[in-house]
Amino acid sequence: MAQHDDIRANEVAVDWPERIDAVLVFIGVIRTPWPTRAECPHHGRPDGPLCRIEVSPPWDAALDGIEAFERIEVFYWLHEARRDLVRQSPGRNGLTKGTFAIRSPVRPNPIGTSIATLVAREGAILKVRGLDCVDRTPLLDLKPDRSQFRSDASR
Amino acid sequence: MAQHDDIRANEVAVDWPERIDAVLVFIGVIRTPWPTRAECPHHGRPDGPLCRIEVSPPWDAALDGIEAFERIEVFYWLHEARRDLVRQSPGRNGLTKGTFAIRSPVRPNPIGTSIATLVAREGAILKVRGLDCVDRTPLLDLKPDRSQFRSDASR
Repeated sequence: MAQHDDIRANEVAVDWPERIDAVLVFIGVIRTPWPTRAECPHHGRPDGPLCRIEVSPPWDAALDGIEAFERIEVFYWLHEARRDLVRQSPGRNGLTKGTFAIRSPVRPNPIGTSIATLVAREGAILKVRGLDCVDRTPLLDLKPDRSQFRSDASR
Repeated sequence: MAQHDDIRANEVAVDWPERIDAVLVFIGVIRTPWPTRAECPHHGRPDGPLCRIEVSPPWDAALDGIEAFERIEVFYWLHEARRDLVRQSPGRNGLTKGTFAIRSPVRPNPIGTSIATLVAREGAILKVRGLDCVDRTPLLDLKPDRSQFRSDASR
């Protein structure tokens, strides 16, 4: 597991279990204007810069029909985040919160999701706005935004 | 990979890549009233039945502060889904769509997400409404719902 971050005052790490419960395959890569995490915006914005989602074969065949949706949910792997913190100090001020009470990238399974606006599809490449991840973030999945299927938004 | 489903007319499967790009650890289990997928509702409902999210140690220490949120995003592993379909026929009628144009559980990385209403926390157990997954679904992550952090909902 990547552990590029130092631990901060009062943060709590746990021993990492050495078992593997499931495995992921990267299905493409996300290209953004931000080469390092320090340069990433804190949140994606619908009017943010254009980013590219490059879907690798054979998964590009699964894109058919996605162009009908204005908003898509993008799942990616936060490959630079450490995974073993149960309490974190986002403000670096000694005050900590439980990992499940914040949306930090540091989590036992560092899966990121963003709702992106689909601007264009060019073959296996999607041009989108609204992302905030570092350049070359591995892609895990793409789904139509749940709000486009129905109004109560509970799935 | 689990492949409990037969392939339907005109669905397209791909050869599964034998590489492992990342690994997941199950951090708990979700208990719902539905013992099989056939019995699950098609979508979770905010007024649906009470479900239990049981967080395993050492990850229960990461729950501190989650009780402040009314809605939480639940990430889980769709452990019964096959992973190799790039075109699917949700209607079982020979008409197919690309996997990324639907929210079916059958996907290369079968990660499910739901927005649940947090009713109560009792130690390492969260009582919630709004889920639709099968009983004993493995838990991957919990995050405060993004809409509770700001209004534009793009992250």
